Amino acid sequence: MTHQDELKQLVGQEAVKFIENNTIVGLGTGSTVKFMVDALGQRVKDEHLSIVGVPTSERTRKQANSLGIPTKGIDEVDHIDLTIDGADEVDQNFQGIKGGGGAHLWEKIVAINSHKNMWIVDESKMVDQLGAFPLPLEVIPYGSQQLFKRLENRGYKPEFRMKDGKYVTTDSNNHIIDLHLGRIEHPNELALELDQLTGVVEHGLFLNLVNTVIVGREDGPEVLHAR
Amino acid sequence: MTHQDELKQLVGQEAVKFIENNTIVGLGTGSTVKFMVDALGQRVKDEHLSIVGVPTSERTRKQANSLGIPTKGIDEVDHIDLTIDGADEVDQNFQGIKGGGGAHLWEKIVAINSHKNMWIVDESKMVDQLGAFPLPLEVIPYGSQQLFKRLENRGYKPEFRMKDGKYVTTDSNNHIIDLHLGRIEHPNELALELDQLTGVVEHGLFLNLVNTVIVGREDGPEVLHAR
Repeated sequence: MTHQDELKQLVGQEAVKFIENNTIVGLGTGSTVKFMVDALGQRVKDEHLSIVGVPTSERTRKQANSLGIPTKGIDEVDHIDLTIDGADEVDQNFQGIKGGGGAHLWEKIVAINSHKNMWIVDESKMVDQLGAFPLPLEVIPYGSQQLFKRLENRGYKPEFRMKDGKYVTTDSNNHIIDLHLGRIEHPNELALELDQLTGVVEHGLFLNLVNTVIVGREDGPEVLHAR
Repeated sequence: MTHQDELKQLVGQEAVKFIENNTIVGLGTGSTVKFMVDALGQRVKDEHLSIVGVPTSERTRKQANSLGIPTKGIDEVDHIDLTIDGADEVDQNFQGIKGGGGAHLWEKIVAINSHKNMWIVDESKMVDQLGAFPLPLEVIPYGSQQLFKRLENRGYKPEFRMKDGKYVTTDSNNHIIDLHLGRIEHPNELALELDQLTGVVEHGLFLNLVNTVIVGREDGPEVLHAR
């Protein structure tokens, strides 16, 4: 295991300490989350913890099930107590960008239906200001060239996300446009503007959603509580 | 032809008088629009009018092509000069509700990319206040049961649109939830609220979009110009 992976594993182990018995837990996707799900599987095995996982991807669902963690779909549960997910950028105010993996729509749907949200990240994701990481938009393919021009005219430096010469397609069969903004001065204002753009299904700004961030530092996981 | 159809035909014939040579024309969908496309085909034949149609549905595309009206997709044109479409409700301020046919997402994408928009409607669509017609939302299937509960809690009387016991699926493979609001006191505020709801792809409120409305009255088509 690389040193980087060791740090991620420590974060994952720290995160699952926050999971209580008889709760419904949203399970994100990503390399740090993978270690968290491993650690959760260990707790389920060792402590006979009774929890239900709500995975945000097929990959996480398979991993959870293989470890004996039962899962349900987002529409099969009444609520979610706590969701643990990764993030691509987190600022000092606990605002973040997600969607580097192209799954921010489903991740946001799980997050807004969770009583509490926790992000687990490595140190490199913590930033003073959001925007160096390209902001992902999930967009309706119909009319997306017109939307692209509109974003270009606003100076948002849009770029369709491609793979093997084809448009990347999300789980909801939409495309992704990444905005190369460099710096996002006013995340809330930008979010409101993007919310109102017809053809934008969801943007990767996750604002006022997260309660706890666990950062993988060299000297061990640091737990940060929002406000 | 029924009397109602005769009125719709007169409206369609009036509408196409506004189409200029060498322009790109958005073509909506619906029973009144069908007569308009017929009338446009007649003008193309009689006057050798050179126009390109941008249809909002496969049905309209086929009708246009069969009448010798060439068509292009929304992402193949630089802009649209004028779009002519129907509406389900239009108030005194030229604000409207669309989506009874479940196509409001694509219709709105065409509308916002048009320099001018015209609605052609029969008299029954003109209302003092919006909301008697159920407001359609196109929603992402993933998490839509949670979204439904959220809408219910806000008192919006949501109802999934069903056909033959199954969820209706849009051209973008989403579901439709109709809100039985009765009256919409503040359309702009409601639109902003719905824009910000994760999982709502697009609502059927078409605000500040239309320039001209042609109403099929008993004594002939009435042309109304906004502001």
